[in-house]
Amino acid sequence: MDLREVFATNLRRIRNAKGLSQDDLAYEAGISRSYLSQLEKGVFYASLKIIEKLAATLEVEPAEFLNTHKASRKAR
Amino acid sequence: MDLREVFATNLRRIRNAKGLSQDDLAYEAGISRSYLSQLEKGVFYASLKIIEKLAATLEVEPAEFLNTHKASRKAR
Repeated sequence: MDLREVFATNLRRIRNAKGLSQDDLAYEAGISRSYLSQLEKGVFYASLKIIEKLAATLEVEPAEFLNTHKASRKAR
Repeated sequence: MDLREVFATNLRRIRNAKGLSQDDLAYEAGISRSYLSQLEKGVFYASLKIIEKLAATLEVEPAEFLNTHKASRKAR
């Protein structure tokens, strides 16, 4: 599983677990809704800067986004 | 602790634990030695692409690089 997909799958999983829409999260993290949507489709290789922002907004450990086990379970 | 520092501290920790020099790791990962040195100083916000490459080369889970607990323990 490509790390972009791992990140995308975990980002969707965490956002949904927090009950946030893409609009909510984009607004709170201060990023554009279209950028967030593309991140969640695994289009971009996110940088630590955006991972740091999303982790702070979602109040999770940054490593959660790169957890390959949870991502592959979710992808099944 | 800034996520660049967390990444830098964990990268140095993992590289040393594998007994690799910066030259060794840079060569095996196919990146320049100066770029690796700057990553280990926390200069850059690394992207998932380089994290994926380094994780494969060092044979560790990508999430290891963003583990804030191990990084802060190491930084003391």
